[in-house]
Amino acid sequence: MPPKALDYESLNENVKKVQYAVRGELYLRASELQKEGKKIIFTNVGNPHALGQKPLSFPRQVVALCQAPFLLDDPNVGLIFPADAISRAKHYLSITTGGLGAYSDSRGIPGVRKEVAEFIERRDGYPSDPELIYLTDGASKGVMQILNTIIRGEGDGVLVPVPQYPLYSAAITLFGGSLVPYYLEETANWGLDLNNLRQSVAQARSKGITVRAMVIINPGNPTGQCLSEANLREILNFCFHEGLVLLGDEVYQQNIYQDERPFISARKVLMGMGLPISKEVQLVSFHTVSKGYWGECGQRGGYFEMTNIPPQTVDEIYKVASIALSPNVPAQIFMGLMVNPPKPGDISYEQFVRESKGILESLRRRARIMTDGFNNCRNIVCNFTEGAMYSFPQIRLPPRAIEAAKRAGKVADVFYCLKLLEATGISTVPGSGFGQKEGVFHLRTTILPAEEDMPAIMDSFKKFNDEFMEQYEDHRGYSRM
Amino acid sequence: MPPKALDYESLNENVKKVQYAVRGELYLRASELQKEGKKIIFTNVGNPHALGQKPLSFPRQVVALCQAPFLLDDPNVGLIFPADAISRAKHYLSITTGGLGAYSDSRGIPGVRKEVAEFIERRDGYPSDPELIYLTDGASKGVMQILNTIIRGEGDGVLVPVPQYPLYSAAITLFGGSLVPYYLEETANWGLDLNNLRQSVAQARSKGITVRAMVIINPGNPTGQCLSEANLREILNFCFHEGLVLLGDEVYQQNIYQDERPFISARKVLMGMGLPISKEVQLVSFHTVSKGYWGECGQRGGYFEMTNIPPQTVDEIYKVASIALSPNVPAQIFMGLMVNPPKPGDISYEQFVRESKGILESLRRRARIMTDGFNNCRNIVCNFTEGAMYSFPQIRLPPRAIEAAKRAGKVADVFYCLKLLEATGISTVPGSGFGQKEGVFHLRTTILPAEEDMPAIMDSFKKFNDEFMEQYEDHRGYSRM
Repeated sequence: MPPKALDYESLNENVKKVQYAVRGELYLRASELQKEGKKIIFTNVGNPHALGQKPLSFPRQVVALCQAPFLLDDPNVGLIFPADAISRAKHYLSITTGGLGAYSDSRGIPGVRKEVAEFIERRDGYPSDPELIYLTDGASKGVMQILNTIIRGEGDGVLVPVPQYPLYSAAITLFGGSLVPYYLEETANWGLDLNNLRQSVAQARSKGITVRAMVIINPGNPTGQCLSEANLREILNFCFHEGLVLLGDEVYQQNIYQDERPFISARKVLMGMGLPISKEVQLVSFHTVSKGYWGECGQRGGYFEMTNIPPQTVDEIYKVASIALSPNVPAQIFMGLMVNPPKPGDISYEQFVRESKGILESLRRRARIMTDGFNNCRNIVCNFTEGAMYSFPQIRLPPRAIEAAKRAGKVADVFYCLKLLEATGISTVPGSGFGQKEGVFHLRTTILPAEEDMPAIMDSFKKFNDEFMEQYEDHRGYSRM
Repeated sequence: MPPKALDYESLNENVKKVQYAVRGELYLRASELQKEGKKIIFTNVGNPHALGQKPLSFPRQVVALCQAPFLLDDPNVGLIFPADAISRAKHYLSITTGGLGAYSDSRGIPGVRKEVAEFIERRDGYPSDPELIYLTDGASKGVMQILNTIIRGEGDGVLVPVPQYPLYSAAITLFGGSLVPYYLEETANWGLDLNNLRQSVAQARSKGITVRAMVIINPGNPTGQCLSEANLREILNFCFHEGLVLLGDEVYQQNIYQDERPFISARKVLMGMGLPISKEVQLVSFHTVSKGYWGECGQRGGYFEMTNIPPQTVDEIYKVASIALSPNVPAQIFMGLMVNPPKPGDISYEQFVRESKGILESLRRRARIMTDGFNNCRNIVCNFTEGAMYSFPQIRLPPRAIEAAKRAGKVADVFYCLKLLEATGISTVPGSGFGQKEGVFHLRTTILPAEEDMPAIMDSFKKFNDEFMEQYEDHRGYSRM
């Protein structure tokens, strides 16, 4: 009998080729161990609430009221909800066409898109058009839609930083395109070097690939660096001269842990560059409610803003978004609240500021504890996490460890991370899941475990690493291989 | 200068080829008219809350509490929430890994998938495995993922009923496959004739297409028919002999408006057919919180259940689901509530039954009012809506109307529906958006306008249709073309 359509051997090859390490072998093993009763510290995904971060009160109050609009008529509602949450809930319900239970326009609720445009204008100092802002079920879905629009086949290449967040490699593979890597410089604090970029493009072209777009992740995931304005200007210039669409993954824009390099959006830099560049470079920027001090990952809310994209293309993107009808409406409300939080004088303002500052300041301290912790470990070097939510230490694995991994049929950093998981319960992602230079090994961990648990986690890591290095380093004066 | 990647001429051709009429020309024109101040009755999408249907209280109370878990400690919470909603909220929060703000497993929360499996078992009388149930952001997203897994290129065909819900044609085009139509028989109450099916497959094969899968929509969209058990058995037999995956779109299973043909799931029929068929036919069944008496479209919640799909394929589907991290968590809770509603004896039971019965009974009456209304119109015939949410009358357009449409550069039913919209504000979808036999014209309308508005809407429709037919019918004894 011939294989059936959903037998493995007859599936879409692009589906089979996809790799997605964030929930790959390490995560599956961690889930197994958890089922067996082992305590697991999941640092594989940037999922703050799963590690105990409390949601911000005000947005949750507003969305709860939107879910239960009958409460707005309840005489007791004021006993458990503040007045400004009640009035905001009424505002959001008034701009839906049937509350949270009705599909919105496939691009999102017009009133929320307007609030997003106003936020962008305040942030960047340039006007933003709500018609060019589409709300999505999280940023990943938006990235996937744009890549699907761009990629026509394997001759189409997309420049992606390496190390990269594997959403990009996975989506490019799924849509049948070619990933064109450009390497970030670990010794220059994961900086982006234009010469590398040019070489990558030249190399891809020599293989017959048409490079169509470039991805930047700012602040970096997994690398944590913040791009400077000068660097962004170079990138935009490069995109202009090469005719590339720039995809700006800016989901960590609230997560900044140093003062030297504040976040600056690609759009702001572009607008400041003047003609012809400011009217020519096609830019799509992504944002989310999942990161920042919100961490509302489970709600699945995001947006993308299109700059210099022709109206006909904007319509095509709308049409394809329509197939799945609309992004989820509750997360659209979260997006509205994120870009339009309580203002000074509002009843909930002080609580909101206290909660959000508390989270951000703690993340800043945790970024420092983690970087210092890794740098105190034998054979480990780690750049400081300037932004985002991750630490990405380099692990200098001794040749005997690499040999042992080979014998076990594992990539060397997978081998290391599995041992770490079994010994300590710390669930990380091996650097090979993000891409790294040949023969260099890393792991990614989030900086999200609770601050009070952090010293114990780093002690437990150090103890494991000492023992691992002890076991595999060559102390007997034998020559290394 | 060569076109840039997001210029229209250089987009992915499959994106450009996609057609999606539910939010197509008619919808866009209706939105324009609404902006100009005209009152529009949106019957183009099955979006009950947008037309005034009230959400069920109990599930909204539970999800509101899950959004605002701090309320569970508030001494006043019992004043505005019933005790069983409070305990259900605690239950759902206890099976998440950080509340609604944390990503769940990419397949959905294990505890909710277990509740879905128990529901299926109660419904069908056969055990169901939670490991083979994946939660999704609405049923459409699930359908798209499965089609993307199956389709390898334009040589792969998927059998789709015509008329069909355009999700299928759109997704097949987007993924680069071939739609293989099989026609439903309007004169046999939109029944499915196996001979038609065989002919469609033979014809596709003669063009070199490998037919890999078959879609059924039961109850039908836009056609409203319910498949009989005997018919389902024939279909499953056919899939067995042809080696086809069956995709069962069963999102309207709660929406049944007659007693002769209750809903029966494809899976129940399959399980009852015994070996080898029951272990051989690959089946994926889809369900949603958007339809039924819930109508929670804006929440975007759904699931699919896989039957006889090999474990390696199940893993591949998991991997691809992981790229976008997880379906939204609030809608997962709605799904849990839908499959596990209040039970007799629960505080909220009577209210829940009253609300849900009220909606269903009214829909049943509206289905009747609409069918009768259409059948009272000149040159219109309409099958009764046995299930789902739509009426799909055939409009027998006079040759002069078809001529006039041609002169206006419009498909004839688009011409008719645009005139209807301008005259009455009723926003429908032309039959050509769903597929129909050559020279036969329809429109689709939902049966969702408020029951009290229904007589006026049907009067307004009749008046328009009378005038339209008056204008275009030939009264002068001229010979028709």
